Amino acid sequence: MTDKDPILLCIAVLGGTGKEGSALAMRWALNGYKVVIGSRDAEKAKQRAVELNQELGGDYLEGMDNQAAATIGNLIVVSVPYAAHKDTLESVKDKLAGKIVVDVTVPLLPPNITTVNVPEGKAAALEARAILGDDVRLVSAFQHVSSSKLKKVNETVDCDVLVCGDDADAKVDVMHLVEAAGMRGVDAGPLVNAGAVEAMGPVLLYINKKYGVKGTGIRITGI
Amino acid sequence: MTDKDPILLCIAVLGGTGKEGSALAMRWALNGYKVVIGSRDAEKAKQRAVELNQELGGDYLEGMDNQAAATIGNLIVVSVPYAAHKDTLESVKDKLAGKIVVDVTVPLLPPNITTVNVPEGKAAALEARAILGDDVRLVSAFQHVSSSKLKKVNETVDCDVLVCGDDADAKVDVMHLVEAAGMRGVDAGPLVNAGAVEAMGPVLLYINKKYGVKGTGIRITGI
Repeated sequence: MTDKDPILLCIAVLGGTGKEGSALAMRWALNGYKVVIGSRDAEKAKQRAVELNQELGGDYLEGMDNQAAATIGNLIVVSVPYAAHKDTLESVKDKLAGKIVVDVTVPLLPPNITTVNVPEGKAAALEARAILGDDVRLVSAFQHVSSSKLKKVNETVDCDVLVCGDDADAKVDVMHLVEAAGMRGVDAGPLVNAGAVEAMGPVLLYINKKYGVKGTGIRITGI
Repeated sequence: MTDKDPILLCIAVLGGTGKEGSALAMRWALNGYKVVIGSRDAEKAKQRAVELNQELGGDYLEGMDNQAAATIGNLIVVSVPYAAHKDTLESVKDKLAGKIVVDVTVPLLPPNITTVNVPEGKAAALEARAILGDDVRLVSAFQHVSSSKLKKVNETVDCDVLVCGDDADAKVDVMHLVEAAGMRGVDAGPLVNAGAVEAMGPVLLYINKKYGVKGTGIRITGI
């Protein structure tokens, strides 16, 4: 469904007005991918695209509502707060058949964002699969990458990206996107393993707070 | 209950005949701690202690059954397969009041040891707390440290140890043990966060298999 040639791949970042989604969108756009950012509110997405293009110094990104973005994109990245995860997926479900969908969601339960919250479906990515069905090529990734590091778009990020999914080819494609965003991808297993990866999100937020730092990450040693 | 002076602290490693427990016991013994290793089978523990002492070139370790080890030790390390976790804890429960108990258990579900298994109690450490009650100063640690690296007792291990627990002083004491075993300890939050740390165990086993390596580990970046 997707092509490895950046020019033929259109990435749609749903929730692309947020910190994490914006930063990923900018990095991919700078690496030659066509990228659109989506939001529930089309005007907000357009405005954010204007701001990001100013930062980037060129006409890189386009903003639109999530439905339009999911229609245009042939690879979809879901970067929304957990509270909006289910509704967002349901609102675009009919646009996603056969496409790779990358779920970035960490199931945080504010205000306790530094303690592990195991969601009802055991992982946000598994909940996504339950909502989207098997027609969608679901991959889980990018949960540990701090937006504070990611937004410095010309710097590499000292963090591995653990990539989980049941579709091996889709994982390979997502690994390319990880590299294009300046990080190393590590195949972390089937989609069920996303439960572990997501759960490390609040642990990193705890460590940030405890040690008074921003943007801790994870490296896998010994590969 | 424990003293930071190694000479006054006796560490009891339950399941200390296993690979992980043996390697930890050797490292602590070499660093001046009094260490005993326990097993369900006292003879097996005695035999293993003889073998490990031969490796260490001195009379460092003593073997005995888990109950005796839990009685002698004033800091208890539980390093048993998940299948033996509940029974082991119940068998020594009455020896543990007021003591620091370090749970090393990863809730693997053989033969699928490379996929995340969320246990009924959400984490082995939380199940331990339910069994042991609040009199025990429970800390979760060492889940990511490969025994293949750990057994090379004079080498540092390229892996951080994420330490979880609700007793801040107990966590500090365990951090000292982490350093004494040649690693860096990172405070990873309350005991509930052990769910994330434990779940990363099978993910590392998956990565080992996928990349054809032994003993991958985790480093926290940005501290």
